[in-house]
Amino acid sequence: RKELSLLMLPGDGIGPEIMIEARRVIDWLAENRSLKITVHEDMVGGAAYDAYGKPLSDEALALAKQVDAVLLGAVGGPKWDGVDYDKRPEAGLLTLRKELDLFANLRPAVCFEALVDASSLKPELVSGLDIMIVRELTGGVYFGEPRGIETLENGERRGINTQVYTTSEIHRIAHVAFDLAGKRDGRVTSSEKANVMESGLLWREEVIKVAESYPDITLDHMLADSCAMQLVRAPKQFDVIVTDNLFGDLLSDVAAMLTGSLGMLPSASLGAKGGGALYEPVHGSAPDIAGQGIANPIATILSLAMALRYTYERPEEAQLIEDAVQGVLAGGLRTADIMQPGKAKVSTSVMGDSILRQL
Amino acid sequence: RKELSLLMLPGDGIGPEIMIEARRVIDWLAENRSLKITVHEDMVGGAAYDAYGKPLSDEALALAKQVDAVLLGAVGGPKWDGVDYDKRPEAGLLTLRKELDLFANLRPAVCFEALVDASSLKPELVSGLDIMIVRELTGGVYFGEPRGIETLENGERRGINTQVYTTSEIHRIAHVAFDLAGKRDGRVTSSEKANVMESGLLWREEVIKVAESYPDITLDHMLADSCAMQLVRAPKQFDVIVTDNLFGDLLSDVAAMLTGSLGMLPSASLGAKGGGALYEPVHGSAPDIAGQGIANPIATILSLAMALRYTYERPEEAQLIEDAVQGVLAGGLRTADIMQPGKAKVSTSVMGDSILRQL
Ligand SMILES: CC(C)[C@H](C(=O)O)[C@@H](O)C(=O)O
Ligand SMILES: CC(C)[C@H](C(=O)O)[C@@H](O)C(=O)O
Repeated sequence: RKELSLLMLPGDGIGPEIMIEARRVIDWLAENRSLKITVHEDMVGGAAYDAYGKPLSDEALALAKQVDAVLLGAVGGPKWDGVDYDKRPEAGLLTLRKELDLFANLRPAVCFEALVDASSLKPELVSGLDIMIVRELTGGVYFGEPRGIETLENGERRGINTQVYTTSEIHRIAHVAFDLAGKRDGRVTSSEKANVMESGLLWREEVIKVAESYPDITLDHMLADSCAMQLVRAPKQFDVIVTDNLFGDLLSDVAAMLTGSLGMLPSASLGAKGGGALYEPVHGSAPDIAGQGIANPIATILSLAMALRYTYERPEEAQLIEDAVQGVLAGGLRTADIMQPGKAKVSTSVMGDSILRQL
Repeated sequence: RKELSLLMLPGDGIGPEIMIEARRVIDWLAENRSLKITVHEDMVGGAAYDAYGKPLSDEALALAKQVDAVLLGAVGGPKWDGVDYDKRPEAGLLTLRKELDLFANLRPAVCFEALVDASSLKPELVSGLDIMIVRELTGGVYFGEPRGIETLENGERRGINTQVYTTSEIHRIAHVAFDLAGKRDGRVTSSEKANVMESGLLWREEVIKVAESYPDITLDHMLADSCAMQLVRAPKQFDVIVTDNLFGDLLSDVAAMLTGSLGMLPSASLGAKGGGALYEPVHGSAPDIAGQGIANPIATILSLAMALRYTYERPEEAQLIEDAVQGVLAGGLRTADIMQPGKAKVSTSVMGDSILRQL
């Protein structure tokens, strides 16, 4: 049997402190479930920039390509606001996505029953919420050429980015969405701005073609602005939403915020079958609270659970971890970000302790 | 004194029925406030396509350039899903924006006190909400070249759009935002994806330059995905949000939906001082309820009030109309879209009647 491997990239801000708790869960799996994962660790983002002068070293990238999965904390922060554009922390993450061809970003927006009241939406609108956002991750305006800032003859500057999608890029992400919908409620909503952008029109037309191979899945189309509105108005109408890189960035963040559980939400970025995989919490690096030991480690621990499910094919252990998280929440423990009246506020490490104890 | 003029473009779906109620208010102004506005009427969108084979006739465009202001209902609907891309209903609206150089789209997101409960957010988060979204409207990916769908040698298709902004485009919209903030709470949030897109980085840098001429205004920057989240989490933190055409499309719709008053929200699209102006409700053409006489005419009537304020310089009459709307709501009348338990459900025309009576 092949050895299992993982690359940990804690990154910036609260990344390192939440990653410590994930590592303790990995140790627990080795000791108690005879699940041995060889863990490598390296830097990404601003941390890598500070150490190597670029946000992802060649060694870290090579390692990321070798291992079964990458677990990433978070990147970015005001400290690096002034660095060259191609060396900013985010570039490290974007390089990983592109070089590992992680075209499918799965972002579940689930409302934890214990946290219904933490949502800014009325409880009845979010209780039981379970949406899967499937975001295209290696195309669109994030990577399109030409791009850059040029100076014109009249002295003005001009900033350019290019939104571009091809048939095959659209097909492969649509397949991911339809396959997932088949294991869920059987409904896919595809979102673009086909009424304004030709790339969106192509997206719509090609998604319709892919749908023909999935007679049991219902497909509908929603303009991205309407979709953003409908997420706020009545989020439970959605099952799977498939959308492009940029709309997916906004829509998945709206969906995540609806749940009131931002600090709880994991994500998976997957390539073709047998390709690489990257798991990361949906939340950012939260530089304002970094180093205080109060960050919520749950999203990172649940990202590890996603890795167990999608990469290591150990759904039982994934379920154990997810149940342990539910148990701790039911027991009334909360980190500061999800604190509610009458609950017990705990630190990052106490939350980690409690999840281990529950396991 | 110059004669005042207005071009009404009812458009598609519920456009014609809501426009009738706005016209009655115009008649009232003539009779009771000796405010004579010469009203022209023409077609736009699918209606114009059906009549002339294109979504805006040359005559209608010429008229739009001559009049002081355009009042538009809504465009689009599934009926025209199959028409050529450059003739789709939305192209009529986009042509108007571009040809009249209406670069500044003002979208107030205000929560009407009587409708606080209609919001999907908890009442305390939206009560008193008053955000102004300033959206750039004639640049960015909506109009950038190259654009289109091409067929590649391998038989695949490729869809392209171009996001592009110049220094002067950014400066003029930033000035609008800072000027507005000066009359409001003095705070501007500029939103882009500077961490991913060079055009967003340029946007940020140029907005910072413009801010130097406004020492009394506070400027901060928020990535568009964070801004979408923060709108859901704590919308009252914002005063003026300035953003580009595409992000503005999504963010303004999220903000509008937060208020629970989508059917109530007007918008203004303005050019340079002395240039053209277009006023329209924020909601769409709602083809599903068109022709039933149940649509909410208030957003269109409040768009007329905005025209009185910004174009005709008759703030007193604008205020009268706004107060009349408040009065009718306080009296318990509701169209179907904002219906609440214990209130009286009324039709489009009865809502119009009541506003006139209140006036
Ligand atoms: C950090 C940033 C580059 C990234 C993105 O824009 O994709 C983040 O917002 C995300 O959603 O993963
Ligand atoms: C109808 C459509 C072209 C338009 C847009 O995308 O700008 C609409 O959504 C809006 O926000 O005014």
